[in-house]
Amino acid sequence: MKLDDTPLDRTAVACEVGSAMYARDRVAQRLGMALETVRPGYAAIAMSVSEDMINGHGICHGGYLFALADTACAYACNSYNVNTLSQAVNIVFMAPAQCSDRLVAEATESNHAGRTSTYDIKVFNGERKVIAVAQGQCRSLRGKLVDGLPSLREPS
Amino acid sequence: MKLDDTPLDRTAVACEVGSAMYARDRVAQRLGMALETVRPGYAAIAMSVSEDMINGHGICHGGYLFALADTACAYACNSYNVNTLSQAVNIVFMAPAQCSDRLVAEATESNHAGRTSTYDIKVFNGERKVIAVAQGQCRSLRGKLVDGLPSLREPS
Amino acid sequence: MKLDDTPLDRTAVACEVGSAMYARDRVAQRLGMALETVRPGYAAIAMSVSEDMINGHGICHGGYLFALADTACAYACNSYNVNTLSQAVNIVFMAPAQCSDRLVAEATESNHAGRTSTYDIKVFNGERKVIAVAQGQCRSLRGKLVDGLPSLREPS
Amino acid sequence: MKLDDTPLDRTAVACEVGSAMYARDRVAQRLGMALETVRPGYAAIAMSVSEDMINGHGICHGGYLFALADTACAYACNSYNVNTLSQAVNIVFMAPAQCSDRLVAEATESNHAGRTSTYDIKVFNGERKVIAVAQGQCRSLRGKLVDGLPSLREPS
Repeated sequence: MKLDDTPLDRTAVACEVGSAMYARDRVAQRLGMALETVRPGYAAIAMSVSEDMINGHGICHGGYLFALADTACAYACNSYNVNTLSQAVNIVFMAPAQCSDRLVAEATESNHAGRTSTYDIKVFNGERKVIAVAQGQCRSLRGKLVDGLPSLREPS
Repeated sequence: MKLDDTPLDRTAVACEVGSAMYARDRVAQRLGMALETVRPGYAAIAMSVSEDMINGHGICHGGYLFALADTACAYACNSYNVNTLSQAVNIVFMAPAQCSDRLVAEATESNHAGRTSTYDIKVFNGERKVIAVAQGQCRSLRGKLVDGLPSLREPS
Repeated sequence: MKLDDTPLDRTAVACEVGSAMYARDRVAQRLGMALETVRPGYAAIAMSVSEDMINGHGICHGGYLFALADTACAYACNSYNVNTLSQAVNIVFMAPAQCSDRLVAEATESNHAGRTSTYDIKVFNGERKVIAVAQGQCRSLRGKLVDGLPSLREPS
Repeated sequence: MKLDDTPLDRTAVACEVGSAMYARDRVAQRLGMALETVRPGYAAIAMSVSEDMINGHGICHGGYLFALADTACAYACNSYNVNTLSQAVNIVFMAPAQCSDRLVAEATESNHAGRTSTYDIKVFNGERKVIAVAQGQCRSLRGKLVDGLPSLREPS
C-alpha cells in the first residue's frame, strides 16, 4: 500500500490499525468498549459502567477505570502501526464513577523520543467531569500491528 | 469489642475487616480473587488469568494486572479498619502474564503520615517471577470499614 | 481588593501571586529561574543549565530538571492564591539537557476536584525539544499565598 | 580483574563503582552528598539540608529531596557496573524536611527484567521519619561504568 502521507491518509491508517486491534481484543469487546476516535497519536474509547464493575463502596472499581485508560493509551500509541507496549502508567483517581455512567477515555501523545513515547490520558463521565487522570509511558518494539499497512513513524 | 492490641489481636481485626470487605466486593469475587493473607498494613491476593483477560497480543491485559494490584492495595490500606481510598497508583509492567497463570499480588505499607499512606505492590506469577511493580498512594477518610470492630490506627 | 473576575483581573492576581512567591523563593532565585508567564492554572519558568548542574555523564542532573518542573507546577498550582502543595510527581526523562541549554518548564492544570488538582508539566530546551514530561498531583490547604489579594478559587 | 563472585567480591565491585561515579559527580559533591553504603542493587546517600535548599514556605525544596532520591537510585542501579539510567521516577512527598536536617536516601532494587529495573526509594530525616517515598524505573545501556572492573550482571 502506498501512503501519500497527507493527514487524511495518516488518519485512515490509524483507523484501520485500530479496527484490526479491536477485532482481536476480546477484553475490550467483552467489557463493551467502543472505539470512538482513532487518529495518529490519539484515541478515544467509551465504556459503560456495568453492575459487574461496582466495588464494595458502590462505585466503579479502579481496575476498570484503569483498564479503560490503559486501553485508550494502547490504541493511541499503536496508531502509527508500530508495535508498542504500555510500560508504565501513573493514574490519579479524581472522582467516583457510578453504575451506568458512560465513560470516555481520551489518550493524547504528549511526546516521543526514540522508542519511548508518553501519553496524557483522561477518563470523563457523561457530563465531561474528569474521573481519572493518567500518564502513560510506552515503548515501541520491532514490527507492525498490521502488515499490509505502512507505518506512520520509523521504528527507532 | 475490646482490643488488647497484641499483634495477634491486631491481625485478627485485619482479617475480619478483609473478610467483611470481600463479602461485599463483587468485583473481586467475580474475577476469582482469593484473599491469601491480610494483616495490618499488608495483603496478599491471588487470581488466575482466565481467557477473558487475554488481550490481542495473547497475554493478560494490563487492566487485570492493575485490578489485582489495586485490590491488594485496597485490602492492605483498609486493614486498620479506617476507611481508606487509593488515590493514585504508579504501575510498571515487567513481564507478561499468560493464560492460566496463578498470580499473587502483595501490598505492603511503606509509610504513612497523617491521612496519607504509601504501599509497595508486586504482582508475581506462580514461579515468583515479578509481573508488575506498583506504588500506591492512599488517603484515609472518616469512619470505619466495620463498625463493630476497633480501628487499629487513629484517623488523623 | 475587589476582583471583577474578568480574565484580565484573574491573570493580574495570578501574576502578583507569582511575583510574591518568587520574592521569597531563594531556591528559584539561586538557580537562576525566571518567571516567564503565570496565569490561573499555568506557569512557564526558564532556567539555564549551569556547569554546577552537570552530572558524571556530562549532562544535566535529573534533580535539576525535576526542580524546574516542580517549581513550574508550584507556581501554576498556587496561581489561584490558595495555598497548595505538590504532593506527588511522576517524571519521565525523555532526552538529555546539555550545559548552557536554556530550559523552559510549562505546567498546565489538567484537572481539579475538591482539594486535589493535577498538572501536566513539560520541560523543553531552546529548540522546543521535550527533555522531560511530568504529572504533578497537588493538594490545597487553608489560607492564601498573598493575604491582600482575593482567591480565584474557593478552598474546598 | 578476576571476580570470584562471592558476596564480598560483589560488594567490593559495587563500592568501587560507587567511588568512581562519585569522583566525577560534581553535583553530588557540591550538594554535600556522602555515599554511606553501596552494594549490588542498593545505595544509601546522606545530605544535609542547607539554607540554600529552603523554599518560600521555609522547608526544603522538593527539587533537592528529589535530587537526593534520584542520586541514591543512580548509585544503586549502576552498582552492577552496567551503565544504567533512571528513566522515570514517581515521588510522593510525605513530610517536610527542615534546614539542617541530615537526610538519608536509601534505594533498593525491587525487580529487574531484561534492561528494566525498578527501585524503591525512601528519604529519611535524622529521626528516621520518612520524608519522601519514590519508585524509580531504570534502563540499562551498553557498556560499563568502570572499564577495569567486571560487570555483576549481564547486559541484556
